[in-house]
Amino acid sequence: MSEGPETVFKFTPIGIIYTPFKEREGTPIQGHYAPEVEGRVEVFEEFADGLKDVEGFSHIILLYVFHKSKGYNLVTKPFLEDEEHGVFAMRAPRRPNPIGLTVVRLNRREGNILHISGIDVLDGTPLLDIKPYVGEFDYFDEVRAGWLETHAGRPRRRHADDRFGK
Amino acid sequence: MSEGPETVFKFTPIGIIYTPFKEREGTPIQGHYAPEVEGRVEVFEEFADGLKDVEGFSHIILLYVFHKSKGYNLVTKPFLEDEEHGVFAMRAPRRPNPIGLTVVRLNRREGNILHISGIDVLDGTPLLDIKPYVGEFDYFDEVRAGWLETHAGRPRRRHADDRFGK
Repeated sequence: MSEGPETVFKFTPIGIIYTPFKEREGTPIQGHYAPEVEGRVEVFEEFADGLKDVEGFSHIILLYVFHKSKGYNLVTKPFLEDEEHGVFAMRAPRRPNPIGLTVVRLNRREGNILHISGIDVLDGTPLLDIKPYVGEFDYFDEVRAGWLETHAGRPRRRHADDRFGK
Repeated sequence: MSEGPETVFKFTPIGIIYTPFKEREGTPIQGHYAPEVEGRVEVFEEFADGLKDVEGFSHIILLYVFHKSKGYNLVTKPFLEDEEHGVFAMRAPRRPNPIGLTVVRLNRREGNILHISGIDVLDGTPLLDIKPYVGEFDYFDEVRAGWLETHAGRPRRRHADDRFGK
């Protein structure tokens, strides 16, 4: 038998993401909408050797915890529209497992500090993992983007309001 | 103060990924290399409502646990070459937090079952999250892929050997 919903996996941070965003309101909802926003990733010293050669990648994938997010709804209204969608058809922070994913540009590395841009998370966000972004693995064109596509023609809400804060 | 390395985050599976791969050897190292391989995602009934409208997306991001992976090395030789690299410059399963990420094609949904292709994980892999793949957020061209790029010209090892099994 496989693991069921009663299995518990425990993860501890490998570092911290520092950004200009001190609160949810005003935080860009995706790094894509804030390519100029700079931040820093501090990888704790005990994990720093794992960064060897990461500077060869122009983009990295950050996996982190939405640490200010409490609880979740399986169906809710995302930032980008007023129709309800399932949480697994959205990137919202309030999820059964509140793990976030953002692809950022890696500008440079100084020891255990990564200087990044295009970041969209709250200051102090606990980092779980860093993976290199590899076009061959992660790059898909000709994608259909479901409900998000129906909004391609009109201006979108690109910064968070406080609807996921309570 | 932010969370440090002593903080523990607990996650429980939202479902299970079923694939043809019963053991590590022969499992493709990225779904990209096995676009024809089909699998199923079972989302547990208690989370099934969260799938509303996911079928509108041609691709989804699966976050899962490398549940057969034990321990890690911060610096190791990846499948694709014989030079050592840091674990955060690799996609290998043996990581400080053994969370995996694969972008797969979503072929269709039947209730709480998602039929997918391009999957590269072991049968029975515990699923932590599903996120829609959105070109606008996740699609970067003109990327530099570090050590992986130096191999673009020669045939690559595209299936796992057992080096991460022990």
